[in-house]
Amino acid sequence: MHVLILGAAGMIGRKLIDALCATGVVGGREITAMTLFDVVKPSRPAVPWPVSTQAGDLSNLSDVRALLSHKPDIVFHLAAIVSGEAEQDFDKGYRVNLDGTRLLFEAIREREYRPRVIFTSSIAVFGAPFPPAIGDDFLCAPLTSYGVQKACIELMLMDYSRKGLFDGIALRLPTVVIRPGKPNKAASGFFSNILREPLAGKEAVLPVLKDVRMWMASPRRTAGFLVHAAGLDLAAVGARRALTMPGISVSVGEMIDALARVAGSDRAALIREEPDERIIKIVEDWPFSFDPARALKLGFAADSSIDEIIRSHIDEELGGQLG
Amino acid sequence: MHVLILGAAGMIGRKLIDALCATGVVGGREITAMTLFDVVKPSRPAVPWPVSTQAGDLSNLSDVRALLSHKPDIVFHLAAIVSGEAEQDFDKGYRVNLDGTRLLFEAIREREYRPRVIFTSSIAVFGAPFPPAIGDDFLCAPLTSYGVQKACIELMLMDYSRKGLFDGIALRLPTVVIRPGKPNKAASGFFSNILREPLAGKEAVLPVLKDVRMWMASPRRTAGFLVHAAGLDLAAVGARRALTMPGISVSVGEMIDALARVAGSDRAALIREEPDERIIKIVEDWPFSFDPARALKLGFAADSSIDEIIRSHIDEELGGQLG
Repeated sequence: MHVLILGAAGMIGRKLIDALCATGVVGGREITAMTLFDVVKPSRPAVPWPVSTQAGDLSNLSDVRALLSHKPDIVFHLAAIVSGEAEQDFDKGYRVNLDGTRLLFEAIREREYRPRVIFTSSIAVFGAPFPPAIGDDFLCAPLTSYGVQKACIELMLMDYSRKGLFDGIALRLPTVVIRPGKPNKAASGFFSNILREPLAGKEAVLPVLKDVRMWMASPRRTAGFLVHAAGLDLAAVGARRALTMPGISVSVGEMIDALARVAGSDRAALIREEPDERIIKIVEDWPFSFDPARALKLGFAADSSIDEIIRSHIDEELGGQLG
Repeated sequence: MHVLILGAAGMIGRKLIDALCATGVVGGREITAMTLFDVVKPSRPAVPWPVSTQAGDLSNLSDVRALLSHKPDIVFHLAAIVSGEAEQDFDKGYRVNLDGTRLLFEAIREREYRPRVIFTSSIAVFGAPFPPAIGDDFLCAPLTSYGVQKACIELMLMDYSRKGLFDGIALRLPTVVIRPGKPNKAASGFFSNILREPLAGKEAVLPVLKDVRMWMASPRRTAGFLVHAAGLDLAAVGARRALTMPGISVSVGEMIDALARVAGSDRAALIREEPDERIIKIVEDWPFSFDPARALKLGFAADSSIDEIIRSHIDEELGGQLG
């Protein structure tokens, strides 16, 4: 299997590459080649099969066409301008997230074959007000440009799949917690910061109240969703090719309790409460509770608990020991 | 008020122009100018205000820019490649229905003002399977390229409106019955044919069984939805700017009974049953029952009955008398 990954230098891309390289298998068959693409050149994993690493622009037709020249069997499309930037730079968000993805779809169509296309969508396709749990039949009414771009691509992916132009599936990812790396300024960043920083022995700021809830999945599970999607029988999925991924709905208070349980109350004490009205206002419109029945039936599985999420971070990012 | 109508030569465009010209008022203010645009030059109504009629291509940027040069206060966007053609010519459907509409949105944005934009969407944004009645929170999962194009534009219209780039609303029109004119070969054409032709004293073919239901509105009510949308306070509508329009759910059997009631059983006897498996299969995936609560609350009103629909056709198209 020749695997193409767009967005290979990002956090989820790297986790996906790790997962694929650990087994050497995807969709039940051996990996024979990889093409890794991002705005910066992705790093090359140490594997026995040939790997091509490429930097380019998703909104540039010749860059995108070149990726399809060897007809990859599976295309993982994770590349995107993130929510905050798409909101600030309206043109860039549409150019990359919407038009760039259409270029990819058209470049596949030009090659006249039918690869599996796995697209990372987001729960940002949903907008308040919400029912108590968002089911698989609930409307997409995004309140950000990023959410609109993701929702439009979901629709087009269904159309290209229905027309037999490729075999696509869109996975609506929960908020990924705990994101490794440095604290970032994304409005959702604190969900990771308040766990990652204390686990490394550092202070973290909590800008919202403790009753705020979020729908979350670990980086490990998130990469697992993508790998699982590569092996699914999509004919059984039917025409509705966008699936909300299973996560767990956890409040900030529950996150802090779990941190104390797993790592000790001295770590939990490193969280400083500094309510920030701007972030409180952004977060109150985010969806935090779902009933992802279709995905569960198709074998996608959530983390068992926030404790599991914390332990998998200690395991994967801290070499099994607290910092 | 300067009114721009794209798709002015089509059936709904002409009904809308008639309705506007009958009162000379839109959105509570006097009409001072009209620009009428379509692929063929629209005919010029006899009115005291200046009317510009233009033929052009919605997917041509300079054609679209020219329409915005006088900053129309209200933009009615009814132009589209119809469902059957968008399904057969994939590129043309996306180029006109999706990209052409984006050109329009961008041309408005370039002028840096905030007109009312009224876009005709369709119940084709929904795809089977359906609940017993489709509510305002039900997902868009179209099963045609046309439906995908309409659903994507709904999402973008919400985004442009949220960003203050214009003040938009999308109306999901029911199947329009009775379409005036000649029988056409659209899969949905028979819903009009089986009433219009017998009312004119001619035979009509019924290609489906009598228990098939459809969600329908008369041309008169459909034009009324557009006029009503021009005067709405959209701030009260909120972020979800796509509204399913009220219609009535009527079976073919009920249509034939009403025809006999209004026009006599000899007219109903002009319908010849010739089941066509291809059309039966297409129609079985169409939505036919809705709960359009939001639109009703905003003052959009359905026809009272299929009898009213038949009578309004006799009134408007046959000069009050059976053919």
